[in-house]
Amino acid sequence: MNMSFLQELFSSITQRDALQRKFGNKNKKGSYDHRDLEAACHELLHSDGEAASIVLASRALDIYQSLGDDDKRAFFDALAKNFSADPDKIDRAYRVYKSDRSNKHLADLFEVTEPLRQEVLRRLNLAQGATYELVRMRQDFLALMKEHKDFESINADFVHLFASWFNRGFLVLKRIDWTTPASILEKIIRYEAVHKIQGWDDLRRRLDNRDRRCFGFFHPAIGDEPLIFVEVALTKGIPDRIQPILAHDHYDIDAPQLADSAAFFGISNCQVGLRGISFGNFLIKQVVQELKYELPNLKNFVTLSPLPMFRSWLEKTYHPDSGLLTPEAQSILAHLDNPNWASNEELANRLNEVIRPLAARYLLKERNGNNQPINPVARFHLGNGAELHRINWLGDVSTNGMKQSAGLMVNYLYVLENIERNNEKYTENGEIVCSPSVRELSKLGRKLFQGELEK
Amino acid sequence: MNMSFLQELFSSITQRDALQRKFGNKNKKGSYDHRDLEAACHELLHSDGEAASIVLASRALDIYQSLGDDDKRAFFDALAKNFSADPDKIDRAYRVYKSDRSNKHLADLFEVTEPLRQEVLRRLNLAQGATYELVRMRQDFLALMKEHKDFESINADFVHLFASWFNRGFLVLKRIDWTTPASILEKIIRYEAVHKIQGWDDLRRRLDNRDRRCFGFFHPAIGDEPLIFVEVALTKGIPDRIQPILAHDHYDIDAPQLADSAAFFGISNCQVGLRGISFGNFLIKQVVQELKYELPNLKNFVTLSPLPMFRSWLEKTYHPDSGLLTPEAQSILAHLDNPNWASNEELANRLNEVIRPLAARYLLKERNGNNQPINPVARFHLGNGAELHRINWLGDVSTNGMKQSAGLMVNYLYVLENIERNNEKYTENGEIVCSPSVRELSKLGRKLFQGELEK
Amino acid sequence: MNMSFLQELFSSITQRDALQRKFGNKNKKGSYDHRDLEAACHELLHSDGEAASIVLASRALDIYQSLGDDDKRAFFDALAKNFSADPDKIDRAYRVYKSDRSNKHLADLFEVTEPLRQEVLRRLNLAQGATYELVRMRQDFLALMKEHKDFESINADFVHLFASWFNRGFLVLKRIDWTTPASILEKIIRYEAVHKIQGWDDLRRRLDNRDRRCFGFFHPAIGDEPLIFVEVALTKGIPDRIQPILAHDHYDIDAPQLADSAAFFGISNCQVGLRGISFGNFLIKQVVQELKYELPNLKNFVTLSPLPMFRSWLEKTYHPDSGLLTPEAQSILAHLDNPNWASNEELANRLNEVIRPLAARYLLKERNGNNQPINPVARFHLGNGAELHRINWLGDVSTNGMKQSAGLMVNYLYVLENIERNNEKYTENGEIVCSPSVRELSKLGRKLFQGELEK
Amino acid sequence: MNMSFLQELFSSITQRDALQRKFGNKNKKGSYDHRDLEAACHELLHSDGEAASIVLASRALDIYQSLGDDDKRAFFDALAKNFSADPDKIDRAYRVYKSDRSNKHLADLFEVTEPLRQEVLRRLNLAQGATYELVRMRQDFLALMKEHKDFESINADFVHLFASWFNRGFLVLKRIDWTTPASILEKIIRYEAVHKIQGWDDLRRRLDNRDRRCFGFFHPAIGDEPLIFVEVALTKGIPDRIQPILAHDHYDIDAPQLADSAAFFGISNCQVGLRGISFGNFLIKQVVQELKYELPNLKNFVTLSPLPMFRSWLEKTYHPDSGLLTPEAQSILAHLDNPNWASNEELANRLNEVIRPLAARYLLKERNGNNQPINPVARFHLGNGAELHRINWLGDVSTNGMKQSAGLMVNYLYVLENIERNNEKYTENGEIVCSPSVRELSKLGRKLFQGELEK
Repeated sequence: MNMSFLQELFSSITQRDALQRKFGNKNKKGSYDHRDLEAACHELLHSDGEAASIVLASRALDIYQSLGDDDKRAFFDALAKNFSADPDKIDRAYRVYKSDRSNKHLADLFEVTEPLRQEVLRRLNLAQGATYELVRMRQDFLALMKEHKDFESINADFVHLFASWFNRGFLVLKRIDWTTPASILEKIIRYEAVHKIQGWDDLRRRLDNRDRRCFGFFHPAIGDEPLIFVEVALTKGIPDRIQPILAHDHYDIDAPQLADSAAFFGISNCQVGLRGISFGNFLIKQVVQELKYELPNLKNFVTLSPLPMFRSWLEKTYHPDSGLLTPEAQSILAHLDNPNWASNEELANRLNEVIRPLAARYLLKERNGNNQPINPVARFHLGNGAELHRINWLGDVSTNGMKQSAGLMVNYLYVLENIERNNEKYTENGEIVCSPSVRELSKLGRKLFQGELEK
Repeated sequence: MNMSFLQELFSSITQRDALQRKFGNKNKKGSYDHRDLEAACHELLHSDGEAASIVLASRALDIYQSLGDDDKRAFFDALAKNFSADPDKIDRAYRVYKSDRSNKHLADLFEVTEPLRQEVLRRLNLAQGATYELVRMRQDFLALMKEHKDFESINADFVHLFASWFNRGFLVLKRIDWTTPASILEKIIRYEAVHKIQGWDDLRRRLDNRDRRCFGFFHPAIGDEPLIFVEVALTKGIPDRIQPILAHDHYDIDAPQLADSAAFFGISNCQVGLRGISFGNFLIKQVVQELKYELPNLKNFVTLSPLPMFRSWLEKTYHPDSGLLTPEAQSILAHLDNPNWASNEELANRLNEVIRPLAARYLLKERNGNNQPINPVARFHLGNGAELHRINWLGDVSTNGMKQSAGLMVNYLYVLENIERNNEKYTENGEIVCSPSVRELSKLGRKLFQGELEK
Repeated sequence: MNMSFLQELFSSITQRDALQRKFGNKNKKGSYDHRDLEAACHELLHSDGEAASIVLASRALDIYQSLGDDDKRAFFDALAKNFSADPDKIDRAYRVYKSDRSNKHLADLFEVTEPLRQEVLRRLNLAQGATYELVRMRQDFLALMKEHKDFESINADFVHLFASWFNRGFLVLKRIDWTTPASILEKIIRYEAVHKIQGWDDLRRRLDNRDRRCFGFFHPAIGDEPLIFVEVALTKGIPDRIQPILAHDHYDIDAPQLADSAAFFGISNCQVGLRGISFGNFLIKQVVQELKYELPNLKNFVTLSPLPMFRSWLEKTYHPDSGLLTPEAQSILAHLDNPNWASNEELANRLNEVIRPLAARYLLKERNGNNQPINPVARFHLGNGAELHRINWLGDVSTNGMKQSAGLMVNYLYVLENIERNNEKYTENGEIVCSPSVRELSKLGRKLFQGELEK
Repeated sequence: MNMSFLQELFSSITQRDALQRKFGNKNKKGSYDHRDLEAACHELLHSDGEAASIVLASRALDIYQSLGDDDKRAFFDALAKNFSADPDKIDRAYRVYKSDRSNKHLADLFEVTEPLRQEVLRRLNLAQGATYELVRMRQDFLALMKEHKDFESINADFVHLFASWFNRGFLVLKRIDWTTPASILEKIIRYEAVHKIQGWDDLRRRLDNRDRRCFGFFHPAIGDEPLIFVEVALTKGIPDRIQPILAHDHYDIDAPQLADSAAFFGISNCQVGLRGISFGNFLIKQVVQELKYELPNLKNFVTLSPLPMFRSWLEKTYHPDSGLLTPEAQSILAHLDNPNWASNEELANRLNEVIRPLAARYLLKERNGNNQPINPVARFHLGNGAELHRINWLGDVSTNGMKQSAGLMVNYLYVLENIERNNEKYTENGEIVCSPSVRELSKLGRKLFQGELEK
């Protein structure tokens, strides 16, 4: 993690030629276009694949970086059209395979079916620092892909390779704290996606060893760039509200040994270019193990999670036209339009009696085509084998929390010895393991629906 | 490199479950057979590919390790037969692709053409320490493959994945010296393939910072296991004999700064299971850069290499029946049968006049079907862009050196600024760049052939 | 340098008892007074000096930390009075020594003459983290000493021990850059004494590898706390002004390799408690060596230093009553009172013609009782063997720079091969090696004095 | 601990001048004598104490290393005579102090009483690597001191400084295992003093993570040189014999987690030059804490210690002339002269009934002038607060074990919560805490003495 001065000195040695080529490149910057890059990729593909290839790969990546969006798009277009596979070879290999379905013939067919661009990407990866540059390339690609339906197949090539390169066995778990290099910490500030970090002072509070832990996955070839990280608060009891955790002056405990609960309150994916390559579930489980070892007193491993999109589901559901809810429920929910409802205690209490039951219902019953919860956070944690533990009223009263989650926050509980069983129930039968209190809420929720039309 | 106590402590934490499963396994050791493993692989393949998969992958690898050779063979057989691809799916995908050769259809065809065993291997790689275990698995596999022609296609699957995983961009160059952990050094002793290391005292001499350097490539997921390493002697002038370098009491120089030459006298591939995944060329070039930076006084980067199989070529060539050489040459070479020729100065001198010219000839003219030298060491270094610099008489007088290389050793010279050009000449025209002295020898060699029949 | 997660984990292990004692202490905080501390020190002094002493030392330091200023003062008072030496023992030992001046008797006399408080401090140092706490104790002490003349002898005891503990052989040079742990960097922000760092963004500019270097001395027993650090700018040519160096958007060079000069523009002592223990000269010389090795292109190693107290000397010197300067010089210098003189080009030019010559004079001729320059920065660098290279007009136009140094900045040049000789000249004859241009300025300066009264 | 390649590279940078001076020195080697060294020390003493001093210190140390024993002795002689203190200054300072016993005057007296050689040693310590060279110097000194009674006072100066430099707060505990650099491990082989390590294979067994631990203290300024280390065996139950622990093929447990006892079976001081500076007690207690943290299952922390000099005490005690023992005891003990007694079961049993009781007696009752046990190992552990737990029959049947300890080995038990109390009892009353079984043995032992003359 801590790339020390000496390592840096060292890597600067091996990067001298890289530097030189950069300077070379600089003079010509702007003079490249997508055709240069395509030519460079062809050259790379036809090199002997070894020594010379590193230089060619570096050059190609340099050219790529110098391109504007239009040229990048044109390059991806070329990848799609000109770095595909040779139909004649495929036809021939298929004919042979069809006549004799041996492994040999299958291997030959497989070889000619692999799009050339996969080999291009593999060879680009020979250059120093290429892995990260390719992740950035895919980030560009994903942005441009939106408008280009036919780019999707290239995406499959990226995913195919990245799944190999970012195999969980290659990832390194590192603790992140105030002794972590600033070069990594500034990325934590930048990438935190759930509860924004307001700067270095705020970061310091987030990493305070007294009651905080933070862990991330790193890839050895990508150095300082975290792939994903999770923030944990050590607390007494399972926390129900995020604001005290984010507050600067609040400490639940005086020393980590005094905590009985570890609350995962933020999981942030850092690399857009790695979308679709999932690490989160591995991370949570490994972090639970680390914490258990460091702090044997911990009893509860739990999340404090938002309920994104619940508010919009709620609005759709209580819309008078929908006719889904009982008139009473509808009339209470109408008060949600009052922007100050949270500060009106009586009003808030009445809403509480309707919203939490509906949230339980929403989490347990609203499913997508695969019989999974429509709520993405629930899908993630329940898919990991967690249990739906508690739905917390006014758990996040920030503007965003009110807007997205109607102020609710959810605890998902990770009980190590139940994870596999929960996961099995969930995967096989779509069964969601939940606490009695949530079950109770859900029953209350059922009664809020008109004629119990609801599934 | 130096996995410290703390890292070890740490990794021992994350390996606790691994430990537990080992103990579990131990009790049942011997009770597993290849069918259990096949079943475990099927289960792994049908898991959700994430959390549970790690456990399944660990179990499968444990079972594999408990198997004997027969069961392993049966398992590879199963991999060949039962983890191939689905012909129907291929037929269908091919039909669609044939009707519309879009990238989408190509991707679909590619997906169903990929043998299932690739996904099996990828998922096995989820387990802690799996990468090394898979390298060991391929080592087993290569041994068993010899008798099983139809295993070759499985080999292609290993190679396909390993080429991705052991991409040069993922390798880490580390210097190896007397401050390197013993756990790595014992492997250097074990793996040195060119000039055997006789134990820890011998190793110490080999790593003496005064006039030695040693570098290896490591893979982050494989830890203490070197993939390949190279031994370098710092000398005054280009060395022509290996025995002084291997001697314990000989130092050419008093301090590294006084050397003008770096002689690569041993390159050892460490992992049989990675055969066919080449690192050597990357290693040499990166080591040249390191040395140039550390010791700016160095002028020559050169190998001191054996000439394996030259002696057997020589014997074939001077065999009276071959009628290839002039009678004089033949009669001189007949003295090679005298086991003491090297200690007879006059005899040695006469042999020298014949053998070195023939060796030059052998290196420059004897080619295989691809117009490359038949000598594998020459092929490696010349293919890397080195120059054929010198052929040294009595360069290796060990039993092995006499038997394999007729006592010769060869210097291949790496001139950084010529490497690309040399490589190009070699690749495109089969041209071998050599020094005037070798050229001269080769001319002399031509005259030793009868009627200059020789090509 | 980078105390990693694991080291931290580890040290947290060994600090568990420390933690426990902290908690214990906390409850009683405030209930301690200086008498408790004095008692604890006596107990420590009479312990067996080994195992139990660690606990006693920890307790004593905890008590110290809980004390207010009055109790601390009372404790130092006790140190002075009750932890001195035993006069009777001294009398006796002296009598024996006088009768026979053997080494044995000298050693006995030395032993009883050593104030007990030295042994107290040594034993306090047994506790985990004690070294830093003792440095902080001396910081308190120095603040309180001002009003207590009789505390000075205690100071000698601190200095005696600290000189041993902070022996240059125990210090570790570390490069500080953006990959340094935040826990160290925040101290760099806090301790920078010459040109204030405005926050993390400003720090980032200061540590930008492209054209900056920063090195500090650390002590292994003090961990994250720098003792002293120096900031270096890599430039083309010797810089004459500080503002461009502090500017965020200014880069002299595109890569460190392109610099020919290394300018030391800030040296900050971090620990008040180590006042009088000097490291600066060691630091500069070692940093020069590091830079020479990393960047062989560097030709000039030079400071860009303020001229503190010059302005006040100037004011005293040109004061009409002093009658020191020629009337012309006086009348020009009178314009210094005009706060906007710097922005008036003509005025500035005329002042330049007087001020720089006087500064040369000031640096070369104004000496203290030891025949050393009265300017402390000059004394430091010239005493280190540097040469007085250049006096820069409007080198620091900040408010502070104008007020202290009349806007001047000075380059002191470190020429490695001359350092010893310069140092010798300076130490033995008070001779200051300076460039011809400064010599020339000094001659001009002489003419500004009336009747050349000046020495 | 693991000085990596990069650190090594780095330190080699800063040692370039060191190298150069070495080469310079080499040419003149042999041309120096003790007068050169004395002159160099005077020069060092009169340097400004800063920059130039490093060079002077290096030179002086180089000269010292080039001297033979006679010159070294002459140098120490000079240290004794010519680097003492100035009697006149002492007389003057004492007079002032006598007239006014202020702290100021005490400090002045202290300053002039400190032998000059202390300042010489402090300044020598400025050179790179000097600390270790000074430890080696004292090693020479101790060897030579034996014949020079008057050198003892110089020894006091060494001890005074080393006690400061090797303060426990500066020591670093490191685990030593198979991943430790070979450069450290070879020293473990060399320095193991209790049960000799037979080479690298033997070492490997000693460091096997499965059931072994090894920890050492290191000093940051001394790098790879351990100061002291302890070997620990993890066992089931408290071990009573050393041979199974030293055996290569014996494992008590399959994994460290299964051990309930940690047996300290070897503590080796590594640096003769640090004799008198004690670390052992700190080491044991810190290692107990480490082990408790890593392996919470451990219940017993115990030594398996030899009983050196017991056999000679025994022989003196049962010598017929002594008349100390009962005739029966004497006649049984006479069989000790039979070299094969241990293999004669009946004989061994009879000896057992006498020897163990006498050993209990010997440990509990035989005291030196300070009322401490005469057995040095007992004195060490009991002084550390351990308890005398068990005396093991045929615990060490090696030649040495039979000869020194009559085959006995002793377990001293460290019970963390009792350590302070035990230490107190021992220090204040000379009370030795022991187990009932040892007490019982001691009672039996009493009866073996004639007329219970015994104290």
